[in-house]
Amino acid sequence: MNDVKIGIIGAGRIGKIHTDNLLHLPNVRIAGIADVQADSALREWAAARGISRVTDDSLGFIRDPGLDAVLICSLTDTHVPLIREAARAGKHIFCEKPVSMDVRETMKALGETEKAGVKLQIGFNRRFDRNFRRIRELVSEGKVGEPHIIKITSRDPAPPPEGYIGKSGGLFMDMAIHDFDMARFLSGSEVEEVYACGKVRVDPVFARYGDVDTAVTTLTFKNGAIGVIDNSRKAVYGYDQRVEVFGSGGSVSADNDFPNTARMSTAEGIFRDKPLHFFLERYREAYREELRMFVESIVAGTDVPVSGYDGLQAELIALAAGLSCRSGRPVRLEEALEMAGAETN
Amino acid sequence: MNDVKIGIIGAGRIGKIHTDNLLHLPNVRIAGIADVQADSALREWAAARGISRVTDDSLGFIRDPGLDAVLICSLTDTHVPLIREAARAGKHIFCEKPVSMDVRETMKALGETEKAGVKLQIGFNRRFDRNFRRIRELVSEGKVGEPHIIKITSRDPAPPPEGYIGKSGGLFMDMAIHDFDMARFLSGSEVEEVYACGKVRVDPVFARYGDVDTAVTTLTFKNGAIGVIDNSRKAVYGYDQRVEVFGSGGSVSADNDFPNTARMSTAEGIFRDKPLHFFLERYREAYREELRMFVESIVAGTDVPVSGYDGLQAELIALAAGLSCRSGRPVRLEEALEMAGAETN
Amino acid sequence: MNDVKIGIIGAGRIGKIHTDNLLHLPNVRIAGIADVQADSALREWAAARGISRVTDDSLGFIRDPGLDAVLICSLTDTHVPLIREAARAGKHIFCEKPVSMDVRETMKALGETEKAGVKLQIGFNRRFDRNFRRIRELVSEGKVGEPHIIKITSRDPAPPPEGYIGKSGGLFMDMAIHDFDMARFLSGSEVEEVYACGKVRVDPVFARYGDVDTAVTTLTFKNGAIGVIDNSRKAVYGYDQRVEVFGSGGSVSADNDFPNTARMSTAEGIFRDKPLHFFLERYREAYREELRMFVESIVAGTDVPVSGYDGLQAELIALAAGLSCRSGRPVRLEEALEMAGAETN
Amino acid sequence: MNDVKIGIIGAGRIGKIHTDNLLHLPNVRIAGIADVQADSALREWAAARGISRVTDDSLGFIRDPGLDAVLICSLTDTHVPLIREAARAGKHIFCEKPVSMDVRETMKALGETEKAGVKLQIGFNRRFDRNFRRIRELVSEGKVGEPHIIKITSRDPAPPPEGYIGKSGGLFMDMAIHDFDMARFLSGSEVEEVYACGKVRVDPVFARYGDVDTAVTTLTFKNGAIGVIDNSRKAVYGYDQRVEVFGSGGSVSADNDFPNTARMSTAEGIFRDKPLHFFLERYREAYREELRMFVESIVAGTDVPVSGYDGLQAELIALAAGLSCRSGRPVRLEEALEMAGAETN
Repeated sequence: MNDVKIGIIGAGRIGKIHTDNLLHLPNVRIAGIADVQADSALREWAAARGISRVTDDSLGFIRDPGLDAVLICSLTDTHVPLIREAARAGKHIFCEKPVSMDVRETMKALGETEKAGVKLQIGFNRRFDRNFRRIRELVSEGKVGEPHIIKITSRDPAPPPEGYIGKSGGLFMDMAIHDFDMARFLSGSEVEEVYACGKVRVDPVFARYGDVDTAVTTLTFKNGAIGVIDNSRKAVYGYDQRVEVFGSGGSVSADNDFPNTARMSTAEGIFRDKPLHFFLERYREAYREELRMFVESIVAGTDVPVSGYDGLQAELIALAAGLSCRSGRPVRLEEALEMAGAETN
Repeated sequence: MNDVKIGIIGAGRIGKIHTDNLLHLPNVRIAGIADVQADSALREWAAARGISRVTDDSLGFIRDPGLDAVLICSLTDTHVPLIREAARAGKHIFCEKPVSMDVRETMKALGETEKAGVKLQIGFNRRFDRNFRRIRELVSEGKVGEPHIIKITSRDPAPPPEGYIGKSGGLFMDMAIHDFDMARFLSGSEVEEVYACGKVRVDPVFARYGDVDTAVTTLTFKNGAIGVIDNSRKAVYGYDQRVEVFGSGGSVSADNDFPNTARMSTAEGIFRDKPLHFFLERYREAYREELRMFVESIVAGTDVPVSGYDGLQAELIALAAGLSCRSGRPVRLEEALEMAGAETN
Repeated sequence: MNDVKIGIIGAGRIGKIHTDNLLHLPNVRIAGIADVQADSALREWAAARGISRVTDDSLGFIRDPGLDAVLICSLTDTHVPLIREAARAGKHIFCEKPVSMDVRETMKALGETEKAGVKLQIGFNRRFDRNFRRIRELVSEGKVGEPHIIKITSRDPAPPPEGYIGKSGGLFMDMAIHDFDMARFLSGSEVEEVYACGKVRVDPVFARYGDVDTAVTTLTFKNGAIGVIDNSRKAVYGYDQRVEVFGSGGSVSADNDFPNTARMSTAEGIFRDKPLHFFLERYREAYREELRMFVESIVAGTDVPVSGYDGLQAELIALAAGLSCRSGRPVRLEEALEMAGAETN
Repeated sequence: MNDVKIGIIGAGRIGKIHTDNLLHLPNVRIAGIADVQADSALREWAAARGISRVTDDSLGFIRDPGLDAVLICSLTDTHVPLIREAARAGKHIFCEKPVSMDVRETMKALGETEKAGVKLQIGFNRRFDRNFRRIRELVSEGKVGEPHIIKITSRDPAPPPEGYIGKSGGLFMDMAIHDFDMARFLSGSEVEEVYACGKVRVDPVFARYGDVDTAVTTLTFKNGAIGVIDNSRKAVYGYDQRVEVFGSGGSVSADNDFPNTARMSTAEGIFRDKPLHFFLERYREAYREELRMFVESIVAGTDVPVSGYDGLQAELIALAAGLSCRSGRPVRLEEALEMAGAETN
């Protein structure tokens, strides 16, 4: 078949990673890059990869009949308009998470892609991690029986710069949203209620933005399972990404990945190196795999592995978690949805 | 110095374990055993250990001037009257957890022991486990900096018999109470608020007694840390008792103990045996150590390692957890205390 | 049945450990202790354990009709005369390893016990270690199929004092003899040939006594398996005792035991405490178990778990290893036996 | 600078892997592929990678002035003539191991490259494995002090097809040669003497070719360390590649790599998946890294990371091991060299 012609919208860090990963895929041609800063540095970077087209006109680029699909890697507040434009132009869409910080907007964008019949994949890259994928596989095979408790540990090695905090959407929408998706992925069930207990423990700067940096969130699922996620913006020993699914038939759990298996025994004790430092190291292969499957779903005409609905659900949980954290009580997803509607209208 | 003369009240499973452990301690003489079923089987069991005195008159036994201390291992509803009697008689007391299922009664018993100036140690044996002791040591040494998140996994290999469920006090008062004490022990701080999410997932029989068998409980501490405990009445792979303390300087965690270190690699995968089956295996040494320290505190005139106050706090947390689970909202310890008072008056 | 009445010969460190372990066994009465230094300190130590008889007349003590069995824990060069005396007196015998440093003498002692029909158990305590026992069990159950390679790591935390080196019999007879027995135990086969490569790497003092402190020994077994043992007199991180049995169906291996399962993650890396320090810590339970089984074999009239023949074979391998190390070539056990005969005559 | 223009000689499995890895390197241009079977399938394979030149004339290809370097991935018996031709033509050379099965021939080839002043790197890919590289780093930093014992476990998941056995050069030259290089790499010292004990345990077919399939080899190093390697042609649980360096200051060891970190706990025990299956999976990154460094050494004019001398030493050890295995006695490297000379003349 013909190559899938893909346009990149937004060439920040993650946009560049996706571009490099696409370059290694067969059946793909990168049609160009659109970025608000279409400067000479970006042109040079693109040229080194054989990409000649660099533009700052995203909307014009999206409408190009030569494009089959777009990767939306620009700032969050541009996602919804870009998705709607792409849907109208009949392009398949891969969009970074979250689709939007306003679930009503997200729902409108989803409606548009459905109407247009284009694919929409959300960038929950962790589902493609070899460890979590194996856990999901074992759960699906019934190895733990009925899931009772889903546990997720998710801690970053260091907090983001202050400039990012205010526009991040907060710990739940920015960081824990990955874990909310993971909880749904691992449990195979939908969340009904959320209780989030958040604190400022890492750096008082978070308080200035009404945000927290440390949180424990309890989820209750439709299938009766309970989920619990602990988050921190700062684990000095590096990226900490572990999960456990416990059920009637046993338990499966995944540990972190390490740069090597070396262990050292000395008069002081037994040592090993810290886990892989952050998401770029830990999820390097996962990033490749999510794009490989996006392209495959286009080529084969099959469903994308992470749908717009998945994106919406994770946003709703994040929304409910934020509400719960601020109000000090559990919040049902329906309630969060209603409140979101109230705020929008 | 002279031997510490100890009387055993209640010779069920745990009473017998304590008796055997006392027999291995220097400076201890077991003065006798009081049990409502002072039958020939018990007399024979005692005689094989050189214990000639077996009686069904607990109160009379407690008043015996030859006794220095008593171990109260009888049913929970007998604890308070026995403690009060022992305090009045000037005996030091080791009492199994919980002191009572009514915190007001517990407070009265504590008041009595304070007035009498006798020692009261509560049977939170897990504090003496070599793994958890090491974790506490590392936390105390500041190895994790300021604690941010305390995580406890506590799962039994199999649920208790139905006959026990109704009188157990429920998952929080019967089982999780150990974890509530552990959370205080590891964090070095007091709990302010509790949110418990409990479900019946293991066996519908628990529902018949208004109890749950699966729970995730969030604790907030005075020092700003957040605790989270997950409990299950049934882990098919055996007793699961793990903890983690995460803080500004890093993280310390303790895994389960295993019967051996053997690992087998075959064409099917890598295998090892399950962890130690239940508390008798896992906490064998811890049970010895708690009594050794009880006796030592009497001999040396020092504080007991687990006080009546510790017992009361754990009960209060359990009470709050039960209230939270039933009401579906977080409960502050003060509120639980007030409600307990209201119920009692 | 009646208690087994046991006499202790030699109350050094290991004699005292055995005595304390016997005190915890049912069906056992310690009849007394014989030691060349039957001084007041020893009498006091014995009295504290309810043992009133302490003598320096080992031979007279052995002949006491009140004794059923003796534990020979005295210096190696006294083992053979004491075994022969005990055999003639019809006592069952537990003897520390090695029986003797002269295999001809060992064979004579064995002949005497066989003639007398008394039991003789050799103190290869490691067979009773829970890890190695599990490995043996898995091998016996056929979990690794046909054994191809047996690997043993055996390293002490610190070398013995210089005064001991000269009379130790050398690394192979003093230290590796345990590993030679372990190799036979795990493989279920007899050794045919030995190649030992030994060096002085830890401390030049070993060279002054014609000894080595570091060695790698290759064993070939009758069943076609190959064994390899690495020894060091000094592992700064503590006692290192690991084994692996690799075969046609897979591999089983046992790691060291640790004082706790605590792990610490900091900005520097992941840490855990060193393994248990030395044999007293690592083999505490194994020492108890070997005596329990010795007594059980007397009570039940069954075979001892480690026979005189086992002791002899380990000595022969040690002898061959020493010859190989000095001559720089592989040595067959038959050859070692012949040379031993030649030297004796 | 200009791209390094590289020609591939031999496009079997490893030649193709190297080609794909070169394609990902900057500064490299693949000038073409020479293979005795320059058929349409190969042309197609090459074309898909943008490589238009495919020839069966290796010697002509080597002499092409447009080439800077060659990768020799053809059959072992072609290595020496190709190296000599490339050296004469002034091309840098990367050659798969072993250079030759005749050390005299290897020495001639090395002499030629030295005379010509071209680089010669030998394909000991394992030196570039992240685990072993970390071990070497820790040893170089003095973390284990003086090395005393070097242990290498090296077992294949399955034996090669019968057709390969006869021309493989035998277990020591074909398989253990990697471990001999690893032993030199880790110890930082040269081997003086070899004792190899080999058996046929996996499959009697090896005996028909005078080969063995199971071996334990002891190495003595100039610095006084002892090395020990255990090899098997068949580990049913997958590729087993572990090392340990033990010394005066402690020990460092590297375990296998696994496809994931998932662990499963059930009523039967604790399980995890087998290690990565074979060298293509385990050493995927190592293969990339060895070529990256080869190109870098050309570009930067620095020494190659694995020299022809390294290749020669490993061959000499393999030769000595084979002699030792057949003769049943230790063999010094000098002796092996002399015998090789005698055989050649």
